Amino acid sequence: MAGGSKSKGVSPSRQEDFPAWFQAVVREGEVAELAHVRGSMVIRPWGYAIWELMQGELDRQIKRSGASNAYFPLFIPLSYIESEAEHVEGFAKEMAVVTHHRLEADPDSPGHLRPGGKLTEPLVVRPTSETIIGKSFAKWINSYRDLPLMVNQWANVVRWEMRPRVLLRTTEFLWQEGHTAFATEEEARANAEQMLEVYRGFADAFLAMPVLTGEKPEEERFPGAVMTLSIEAMMQDGKALQAGTSHYLGQSFAEAAEITFLDSEGERGLVHTASWGVSTRLLGALIMSHSDDIGLRLPPTVAPQQVVIVPIPRGDEGPAVIEAAEELAREIGDLSFDGVPVRVSADLRDREPPDKRWEWTRKGVPLVLELGPRDLKEGVVALRRRDVDAKPEPLERSRVATAIPALLAEIQDSYRAAAAERLSSRTRHDVTDLDGFREWFDTDPSDADAGGFVRAPWSEAPESAEILEGLKVTVRCLPTEQDLSPGALCVLTGKPAVTEAIFAKAY
Amino acid sequence: MAGGSKSKGVSPSRQEDFPAWFQAVVREGEVAELAHVRGSMVIRPWGYAIWELMQGELDRQIKRSGASNAYFPLFIPLSYIESEAEHVEGFAKEMAVVTHHRLEADPDSPGHLRPGGKLTEPLVVRPTSETIIGKSFAKWINSYRDLPLMVNQWANVVRWEMRPRVLLRTTEFLWQEGHTAFATEEEARANAEQMLEVYRGFADAFLAMPVLTGEKPEEERFPGAVMTLSIEAMMQDGKALQAGTSHYLGQSFAEAAEITFLDSEGERGLVHTASWGVSTRLLGALIMSHSDDIGLRLPPTVAPQQVVIVPIPRGDEGPAVIEAAEELAREIGDLSFDGVPVRVSADLRDREPPDKRWEWTRKGVPLVLELGPRDLKEGVVALRRRDVDAKPEPLERSRVATAIPALLAEIQDSYRAAAAERLSSRTRHDVTDLDGFREWFDTDPSDADAGGFVRAPWSEAPESAEILEGLKVTVRCLPTEQDLSPGALCVLTGKPAVTEAIFAKAY
Repeated sequence: MAGGSKSKGVSPSRQEDFPAWFQAVVREGEVAELAHVRGSMVIRPWGYAIWELMQGELDRQIKRSGASNAYFPLFIPLSYIESEAEHVEGFAKEMAVVTHHRLEADPDSPGHLRPGGKLTEPLVVRPTSETIIGKSFAKWINSYRDLPLMVNQWANVVRWEMRPRVLLRTTEFLWQEGHTAFATEEEARANAEQMLEVYRGFADAFLAMPVLTGEKPEEERFPGAVMTLSIEAMMQDGKALQAGTSHYLGQSFAEAAEITFLDSEGERGLVHTASWGVSTRLLGALIMSHSDDIGLRLPPTVAPQQVVIVPIPRGDEGPAVIEAAEELAREIGDLSFDGVPVRVSADLRDREPPDKRWEWTRKGVPLVLELGPRDLKEGVVALRRRDVDAKPEPLERSRVATAIPALLAEIQDSYRAAAAERLSSRTRHDVTDLDGFREWFDTDPSDADAGGFVRAPWSEAPESAEILEGLKVTVRCLPTEQDLSPGALCVLTGKPAVTEAIFAKAY
Repeated sequence: MAGGSKSKGVSPSRQEDFPAWFQAVVREGEVAELAHVRGSMVIRPWGYAIWELMQGELDRQIKRSGASNAYFPLFIPLSYIESEAEHVEGFAKEMAVVTHHRLEADPDSPGHLRPGGKLTEPLVVRPTSETIIGKSFAKWINSYRDLPLMVNQWANVVRWEMRPRVLLRTTEFLWQEGHTAFATEEEARANAEQMLEVYRGFADAFLAMPVLTGEKPEEERFPGAVMTLSIEAMMQDGKALQAGTSHYLGQSFAEAAEITFLDSEGERGLVHTASWGVSTRLLGALIMSHSDDIGLRLPPTVAPQQVVIVPIPRGDEGPAVIEAAEELAREIGDLSFDGVPVRVSADLRDREPPDKRWEWTRKGVPLVLELGPRDLKEGVVALRRRDVDAKPEPLERSRVATAIPALLAEIQDSYRAAAAERLSSRTRHDVTDLDGFREWFDTDPSDADAGGFVRAPWSEAPESAEILEGLKVTVRCLPTEQDLSPGALCVLTGKPAVTEAIFAKAY
């Protein structure tokens, strides 16, 4: 691949400019790039391999919840959107619209093409699939015996973005969207809660990224939802990133799509639906959680390569070094971490060893092992851990089998611990009034060390909105575990509080 | 799920109307349905689970070939297509075109929406991604050290279809598209050939569907390709179905996208590219290869459930029967077939046992085991094999561990053997002139027992086209292994033949 600095580290550093650092890590780590069409993204092989590992684990958990995968059309008829608009207030309108089905020579401009074959009904490229999946559910569901119906779809969706940012806000992105229908409100709510717990556990264990869970305040709900739950992670700059959502949709989508069923008494009623999703945004969250000024740092669970061996073949010992590197790769490939074989390779490409070392370091590989003639003679390999910025340590060949899985576990734990420590130490519980609140959030936006979350009593009073907007702060969620003292006053308005809330600047 | 006949079998039969039979099997087997938008398809959970099994195996083989997965934008700028049109003759023009990025209230029609926010440059929904991936390759490839570059993408693509048919020809479908770039023609050709062999082996072993391989005649090549290879399967009605293609693209796409590299001498040159793909069409091929008048028949390799246990809980023995069914499912789930645990479930839904049995039979499950109080007492289960239309046989509980994997292997082999026998017995090698050719192909299109392939010498003379068109026959491929006798004459024109060809009606 072309490009990619050979020097140690990306520029700028987190301290210098956090948003620009993020872009540099994504670029130099060959994760993704905005390209070709404004707001569109290429997910490069290294980034896609991370996504595939996430998908694999989430897919297992989704199936375990009882949902089955399926696939629904990319194009939604305009009439479906109109019928949803009637039933659902405030639905988004920035969508890609297909109006023609042909390209034809442009008579006004030789050598150019123009749209032809105008469609009688425009088609919308799915921004999400509640509407179209609802219409299929209406066809498939007849009686209570057909319930619950739980499907999940891995798909691309499109939402026109005026200010695109790679991985965080792109016009097209990849996600999974689960859509479920139940006979009762209780079951549908329970499904939304269960899937939020799946997301929380996945983020915590698999992405080494502890998150807060809670309900969104009314004005932040998914349009049409009765309840929107989210997981919220804290990035290294103290900002929040919503990393997954789960909705109890009540009966409004069932009404729009006419999803009815005969209950066991023979009465016809509307189903209750839920939906839940996470997207390639998680790649952005992962990076802003763990990476450093050198580049990507990947928890071993999501590292496409957990161990890379860089041979340093010098002089006559060259062939022996190569052979030893391949042998070592085989040996490590027979080991297991987290229940699967360790992902390892020997990098035998025609490049300089230091370039290889820094490429894998920048790409976040947890362990890089270097092996030269002297190491060979001494029966060791030089071990570089990505979680610490230290010189390589010699590791005895005979200890590889026990050391590698243990080291991977240590690295996974250390990334998780650092993220947990940040979430805990940078969440203020002691801010009691607007002055303190202002002070905490009045930070230089590029300063990675300032700010964080505030957890405080909130009145939900309408005047909150203006105060928050002025500070560019949002209510992230009303945390699941509430601990509101009797008589507590709102941190923003001083009025009686009705809930605890998590406040933060957010991506 | 609602719908689905409870009677034995689908209607019409293969003999009565093969195309209508296919649609009935797809519908009653809950594989897929055309829905929502003309030409668009919903792949239902059962069908999608089959696709996922195919994907899993193909994905492993693609990665083993050295390719990595990645993801490229859905939308292609019109200018890219224009630049391709300059370099590539005959490219298809039926494409979905996005012209607007917003929906707004229609002032002329209250309650309705209309497209707004006209784009300055229209965007095409990808029909295939050579163009856009080529532009990324141009950016990523600098020197010979960056070669070969091999990426694969699992994605949805859109080609406007005027006469859609479920699974076979739909406006949107799912596929994988591999795109590779090499320093030399030799390597690029070898890659195209290697991937065709992957497809052949996959169809043969995994889909139990032996195929012919060969090169497409010039007029059937992918536009811009130097060489198009395909695998061709024979359906039960004797028609051919192209089940996968692989192209050596020469340097025309490299030229259009300006993909150049510095060779080891420091000279700049164009790369040679290849591309290869298979799609959800394979689901159609699978069904038309193996299914029968009862419904789907799935080779165990692609059966989402390989064994389903239907308990028949009568009277006091009810709970004991349910318990035994669950115990049996656990026992079978510990067995292996084809290197993975047997996919088994006990169907405990609130339905009548005969309805369950026919549902799973219609859905193609290889083995259905029924278990009632009497079976329990006698220490047997009633075994129904999907590959034979016979009464259930008692299987001793103590023999389950050895019998189930062996039965699955037998069923896999029997489906493959039947498909191989058909391909062999219905390919004529003895047709030597146009009269015989006409007679073989002059069949009632709904007659499943008439016709098949002809393998015969061909002159490639231009007048062939008209003859073939009149008979609705096409040249499927020029078979890889040629066996042309010296002096052989063209079956269509009587002129000297230059190649052997496979002729057939086709999907």
